Amino acid sequence: MTAKIRVLVTTVPFGEVDRRPLEILEAAGVEVVMNPLNRKLTSADLASMIPGIDYLIAGTEMIDDAVLSKADRLKLIARVGIGLDSVDLNAARRRGIPVTYTPDAPSEAVADLTIGLILSCLRQIHTANARMHRGEWHRHFGRRLGELTVGLVGLGRIGSGVARRLGGFNPRRVLGHDLLTRDQLRIPDFVELVDFEQLVSESDVVSIHVPLNGKTRDWFDQRVLSSMKVDAVLVNTARGGIVNETDLLQTMTGGNLSAVALDVFDVEPYSGPLSEIERVLLTSHMGSMSVDSRTRMEVEAAEEVARAVHDLAPLRPVPETAYESKV
Amino acid sequence: MTAKIRVLVTTVPFGEVDRRPLEILEAAGVEVVMNPLNRKLTSADLASMIPGIDYLIAGTEMIDDAVLSKADRLKLIARVGIGLDSVDLNAARRRGIPVTYTPDAPSEAVADLTIGLILSCLRQIHTANARMHRGEWHRHFGRRLGELTVGLVGLGRIGSGVARRLGGFNPRRVLGHDLLTRDQLRIPDFVELVDFEQLVSESDVVSIHVPLNGKTRDWFDQRVLSSMKVDAVLVNTARGGIVNETDLLQTMTGGNLSAVALDVFDVEPYSGPLSEIERVLLTSHMGSMSVDSRTRMEVEAAEEVARAVHDLAPLRPVPETAYESKV
Repeated sequence: MTAKIRVLVTTVPFGEVDRRPLEILEAAGVEVVMNPLNRKLTSADLASMIPGIDYLIAGTEMIDDAVLSKADRLKLIARVGIGLDSVDLNAARRRGIPVTYTPDAPSEAVADLTIGLILSCLRQIHTANARMHRGEWHRHFGRRLGELTVGLVGLGRIGSGVARRLGGFNPRRVLGHDLLTRDQLRIPDFVELVDFEQLVSESDVVSIHVPLNGKTRDWFDQRVLSSMKVDAVLVNTARGGIVNETDLLQTMTGGNLSAVALDVFDVEPYSGPLSEIERVLLTSHMGSMSVDSRTRMEVEAAEEVARAVHDLAPLRPVPETAYESKV
Repeated sequence: MTAKIRVLVTTVPFGEVDRRPLEILEAAGVEVVMNPLNRKLTSADLASMIPGIDYLIAGTEMIDDAVLSKADRLKLIARVGIGLDSVDLNAARRRGIPVTYTPDAPSEAVADLTIGLILSCLRQIHTANARMHRGEWHRHFGRRLGELTVGLVGLGRIGSGVARRLGGFNPRRVLGHDLLTRDQLRIPDFVELVDFEQLVSESDVVSIHVPLNGKTRDWFDQRVLSSMKVDAVLVNTARGGIVNETDLLQTMTGGNLSAVALDVFDVEPYSGPLSEIERVLLTSHMGSMSVDSRTRMEVEAAEEVARAVHDLAPLRPVPETAYESKV
């Protein structure tokens, strides 16, 4: 009698609005172990759960060498999402564990949310709503995208999707910064490629769309934040570690930046002093949380597990460049 | 010695972020009387202030026959904005008082705000922000525009601007309803013109962009609201009277409509029971409140007064159709 094959699902929620990902796993004959803590796991949590697990469907929790050293049966890490900052890819490779991800599924949902956050910041929608619910009527002044310069840091799947959406608003300028060249990117003609310093200093709205890695960690520190326009808007729907939260707090309590929107944080769930500043718009890492995007992400991850059970090659293996950027 | 020529400015704020409108009035040699109550006036307030006034730069306060019967010197009503529901146009005409408005200046700002409100409703940005500021982390599920049908009631300056902005989001369908035909409108090809009943029953998002008049008052009543999809989003940046607030409250407390965004109200400033419902997003009539739009509106109104002082014809008189729709 063979031991039961088990998949641990750590990402929360999973299969909640659509049961298809669970059905795919059941059809593959694996036993599904759901995250018993119903929150983002710590590295220690995961290390205690990983022994005896054959497949891992992972959220953004840290999967480091310490976790992997306990993974006595692990044959696949299927990330639900696009970010790979949480996975020690080379430690997984040393142990022969392939890693897959779902890079396309969340992009459109993140781009939608980003525009929503930009408009909320520019028009103080979140502030007006909070005040109206307290019974205060104040006609807030805002700014139109048509009179502003928008800067997009990173022009991959998400950044280019944000650019495409901006077209209909006819911004004065759209600046973009990326390591790739125009012919390697799929971006509208109106995007002007500039260097990072120019983008940050000339933009009225700066929105971040790069992965978190050694080069981007703490990229938006005191020096960069203080080079922004004093009334600029900063939006981060990428990863928390890219904007230094301590420096951001200092910048905002000092009166700079007219508004900031953060969907991602250094430590999630976030609970920190930025929530005491009214002009900081906070959301709870919900960039990919549209029903269809989330379902597609979960289905794609479940399919990778099902393929692995049947000894089929992964459909969306992490690209070689992601391993290199970790070194 | 001739009596001083006086202009009463009732709209609040005025000349606040940009002094140009005040400078235009000063250059025209008129004495500026600012709204002493610093809030939207009642008809009785205005009736007590209007005697001895030569020109009126008006907000959305009621300018009815009772007010005009006290207007012993009034030579022009210059509305700051596009809506004419507040002015008894035919009573003004009977007294030989021309009325001007600023139809183009606010449109882009209102269209920007509308998209911001739609995205906030679809992704629960306002709800997440309120909870995060209370220290609660919950990953809200939302919907992408790419999977939805958006219905625009009214396709004039603002409705067509909203349609243009929607293009970059690639909605599943954009339905539109207007009294004019496609060749009389300036709308993107992707907008499908349909009748009102079809628009309301098939749209996931319904956004209102029509003037308030006898035909549109209480248009969204219990019957129409209950014909909408149960999880639909309703956005009103037009005029408060178009959506019946009592019927809307009943609809929402009954669990229908996933979210509603209101920038305009029957009585402004608004204070009513809709502010007790978390999924109602409330803003304070700030559709036109972008710095550039607001300045342009105030400058255009001040220019009409300056032209009237110099016996020049108005640049933006209210169109004949607006008088007819009042009859």
